Formats: sequence, C-alpha cells, structure tokens
Amino acid sequence: MKIVDPAKLLQGNRRSLAKAITLTESSLDSHREQSQALLNSVLSHTGSSVRIGITGVPGVGKSTFIEAFGLHLTALGKKVAVLAVDPSSPVTGGSILGDKTRMEVLSQQQNAFIRPSPSSGSLGGVAQKTREAMLLCEAAGYDVIIIETVGVGQSEYQVAGMVDFFLLLMLPNAGDELQGIKKGILELADAIIVNKADGVSQSLARQAKAHYENALHFVAQNGHWQPKVLTCSALENANIDTIWEMISSYFEAPQLSKHRASKRKHQNLEWMQSLIHELLELKLTRSSASNSHKNLVSQQVSEGSKTPLQAATEIIDRLFLDQKDN
Amino acid sequence: MKIVDPAKLLQGNRRSLAKAITLTESSLDSHREQSQALLNSVLSHTGSSVRIGITGVPGVGKSTFIEAFGLHLTALGKKVAVLAVDPSSPVTGGSILGDKTRMEVLSQQQNAFIRPSPSSGSLGGVAQKTREAMLLCEAAGYDVIIIETVGVGQSEYQVAGMVDFFLLLMLPNAGDELQGIKKGILELADAIIVNKADGVSQSLARQAKAHYENALHFVAQNGHWQPKVLTCSALENANIDTIWEMISSYFEAPQLSKHRASKRKHQNLEWMQSLIHELLELKLTRSSASNSHKNLVSQQVSEGSKTPLQAATEIIDRLFLDQKDN
Repeated sequence: MKIVDPAKLLQGNRRSLAKAITLTESSLDSHREQSQALLNSVLSHTGSSVRIGITGVPGVGKSTFIEAFGLHLTALGKKVAVLAVDPSSPVTGGSILGDKTRMEVLSQQQNAFIRPSPSSGSLGGVAQKTREAMLLCEAAGYDVIIIETVGVGQSEYQVAGMVDFFLLLMLPNAGDELQGIKKGILELADAIIVNKADGVSQSLARQAKAHYENALHFVAQNGHWQPKVLTCSALENANIDTIWEMISSYFEAPQLSKHRASKRKHQNLEWMQSLIHELLELKLTRSSASNSHKNLVSQQVSEGSKTPLQAATEIIDRLFLDQKDN
Repeated sequence: MKIVDPAKLLQGNRRSLAKAITLTESSLDSHREQSQALLNSVLSHTGSSVRIGITGVPGVGKSTFIEAFGLHLTALGKKVAVLAVDPSSPVTGGSILGDKTRMEVLSQQQNAFIRPSPSSGSLGGVAQKTREAMLLCEAAGYDVIIIETVGVGQSEYQVAGMVDFFLLLMLPNAGDELQGIKKGILELADAIIVNKADGVSQSLARQAKAHYENALHFVAQNGHWQPKVLTCSALENANIDTIWEMISSYFEAPQLSKHRASKRKHQNLEWMQSLIHELLELKLTRSSASNSHKNLVSQQVSEGSKTPLQAATEIIDRLFLDQKDN
C-alpha cells in the first residue's frame, strides 16, 4: 500500500481519503504506524465539521433518511461524509450498514463520500476506526459528518461519544417499537425523528410525536438543549429541511458554543481514558502468565472465595511484576 | 484497636461486628490489612442474605420507610442490617443518611443493626466500605441487608451494583418529582414504591402509580423480572407487608434462581474490573513522573493537538517504564 500524501488529502482528493481510511483499517503494524503518522500530520486541520450521529431499529428507514438528508445538504453546497459503526458486521463480506449500493443517488454526488463500516477493529474496536475516519474526512474538508449505527451492543453509546448531535429515528407505530428501545437510548438523543410520516401513517406519526415528547419528560436533560421531536417522510422528502434547520439552530446558538466545545473536549478525554483501560487489558491478555493468573482469580471471585478487592490487587501486582521481569 | 475475633463475629456478636466495620473504615494500612484478613476468614459464611437497595430524593421518607419495613421484618423473626452509602457526607461530622437518631424504634430492636455511612473511602470509595460492611453483616448472620442511598453522583449505580433488589421510593406528587430523577434511575429499579399514600394524597398516589407504570414501558426490561409499582404509607404502616411479599416473590421464584446467582457473580466481576482500573489510576497518580506526564498529554488531547489513542499509548508506556525503573 502506498503512503498517502497529506497534501492531497487536505486538498480533498477522494482517492487519498479512501486510501487513508483503508490504512487505518489495516491490521498490519506498519500500516497502523503510517496511519497514526498521517493522522498526526493533519490533526490541526480537523474538528471544524458538524458531527451528527444517527441510530434507529432496522426498518426505520435510516438509509432513505440519510440519502434525503445528505442530498438536502449537498444542494446547500455542503460536503457530506457518511460513515458507519456496525459492530455486527462480519469480518469478511458485506456489512449490514455499509452497503454502497444503498444511497445510490447520494453516492453519485461529487460532494458526498460514503464509507462502509470498518469490518473489524482491534484497539477501541470499530469505534476507534470510525473516529479516525471522521478526522480524516474533516481534514479532507467535509462540512458535515454523519455517523450511522444499528442499535447493537454499545454502538449507540460509542457513536454518541464521538458526535456533536445525536438523532434517534423512530417509526410512527410507537407502541410496538418501544419494546425495541434499548436502555438509556432516549437519554442519548438530542432529537427524535419520527420517520415514515406519510400516507395513512401521518396521524400515527403525530401521535408518536406526542408520545415521545411525553417520554422525554422521563429523561433528565443537560440543561443546555431541550431535545426536540419532529416528524418527517424521507421517502417523500417532507420536513427534511426543517430537521436541518433544527440541527443548525443547535450549532449556531451562541449560548451553546461553550457547551459544544466542552462536550468535544469531554468526549476526547473520555475516549483517552477508555483506551488507557483497554491498553491495560491488552497488557494483561498478552502476558500469558498474567492472563492465566487473572482467569484463575476471576474464577475465585465468581465462586465467592475471593473478594473483588483482593483479586484486583493481586492481578495488578502480578501484571507489574511480569512487566518488570521482561 | 484490638483485633476482632472471627468466631465472635460469626456468632453474631454486635460489638464484634461494629468493631469489624470500623476496622474496614480505618485509614491505617495495618488496620486495612487486618480487615482484609478478617474478611477472608469469614468469606465462606457470607452471601446468604437478601440484599435490598433503597433510594429516593430527600423528603421522600426513606428513614420512615426503612424503619417501618425493618420493624415488619424483625416482627417476622428476621435479623435486619441497615447500611448507608452517602458520598455527600463530610469526612468529619455527621452524615446526611447515617444519623443514628433516625429510625429510633428500629435501632432499639435486638435483631436490627444500623450503621451510618462510612465517612470516607479511598480505593473503591464509600461503596467499597459498604460492600465490606455488607459481607461482615452477612457473616454475623443478618438475613436482610438494606442499603440506603441518596441520589448523589454515582451512588445509585454503585448500590444497584451490590444488591439483589433495588427499590426506588417516590412521592405521590409525580409531576414535580420527575424533574429530580437522574438519568437512567428508572432502569435500575426492580420496584417503584410510591410512599406517603395517606390522607389527601391517596388519589395522587394512585395517579402516580399509573404514571410510573406507564414510565416503565419506556425502559427496557431484563426479561426475568417485570418491575412492580406499589403504593404505601410508611407513616401509617400501610401496605408494608405487601411490599415485603412482592420482594419475597422475587427471591422465592425458582425460575429466577439462575438469574439471581448470575447477577451476583456478574456484580462481583464488574466490581473487580472497576477496582483493577482504579488501582491502575492509583499507580498513575502515585508515580509523580507518570502523573505529570499524564496531565501534560491530557492537556494536549483537550486542545486537540494529540489523538486520544496516541495519548493513551504514551501514558501506558510511560507508566510501565516508570515502574520498571523503580
């Protein structure tokens, strides 16, 4: 794989961007090193995009929504990148989310860049690769980065932890769907969009809107932004403009500028902290002596024959001892 | 401080129990060592109690409820211990929760043991000390351990992480109070109790019950137990028996026995994992070189001049290098 020229990436060369992202996804150490060096060289050109996360159960119409939303943005002259976090995607073969044949019209736009979900990730998982891809897209001059996820495992939390604004897409048929909402998902949402508000579903969608507005009363707010509930029909391109106006109002509000900045800073430090813990876990796993010792004491904790504190102390002592010996 | 005789503790000697708990709360290393040795020697006699967590906003009537509930249990011949997790308590002086002058009648019962919140905690915080106190109470033969907390910071999560059953106490005046509910608190609850369902508040309490039953529909369930909503008047001792019957049904259901066992096992392993991370943080903080290095790169991450991954890698590398040099 050829080294990516940072200058070309910064000029917005699509081929360079695609190659740079592929480099981050490589499992070869040499590629990872190149990738980190590239990231560092363009880091000062990142951070100026609007980062939007989108989630929703399968069937809610995420692709149709993102296509309509993305086309609205490109029509406004914006450069739009669509990335996906899909922890369920198999290592080989197609991803549920990242199928390039979806969003056919958007993908043909000169100002749109669509990237499937990374197929695997080691440190930090696919979320780490998506973060890196996001920074690269920003360096390449994209104004809006849309990060899409299916609600599997921790993916919504991970996406909420890397975006400025988090959209939860919902179906008009609220009652049935609520069962599928994962714990805490409402708390992540900066806005709930009831999609498929078209044809016979329009009155249902209005009911669902009232329903979710009520539901949000059960969720503590951060005090800076009151989550909004809107309806739309991505299929009929109805209300997509209103959704963008609502999101813009979040980004343009001067009184929210401190909040937005501190949110990003907080996200970065949280992410660093979680990587520190993950690196430690990696050290534990990679040292076979430490690892088998950890398994042993974990078993004792499971059985109740050792307290968690004693076990933790032994595990850490052993790890540092092992590293010293090496 | 004298060493506590494990045999006396196991016989249920109240003085030994009190001393053993005081030992866990000492900041002297030698006391902590004695305390850990004592815990290990009685560990096989722990784990057989019913562990109940209780939370609610100030004014909801936690003390009155616990007194009524505890007296109901002692009347049934059970030994009841009441512990508190109160991260807001000052290091010196009285704790908000643990005031012994509360629960006056219960505290005079032979079969009741009431312990104020530990005034401070190092590793694992007051939650760790409360866990240790819980194990000591179990070793001393207490059948039901009630762990009380005010909703400050992470305390509900910590309490939910050490009990079998988590009660959320609410006021009849639902509308006003919902604003005070912290994120995710409904998800922790195995039951919601609307207290103060007496006098003119009875119809309000019924409304609140319906309200919370509706609210629970917005919360994902674990599939094993559908959270219940009940009303009671701790002041008039009304419905306290029904609440205990409801909790008993959870503990006696044979189909839940696997779930209950795996919940405890999971709690212990989670706690061990969080202590591992805390011990690592402690190593970072205690090594002044590592610590100042961490502050430096954290600053760079905040400013966006270093990626979280690069920062985390440097912090871990530096930590292990420092430990090696020592």
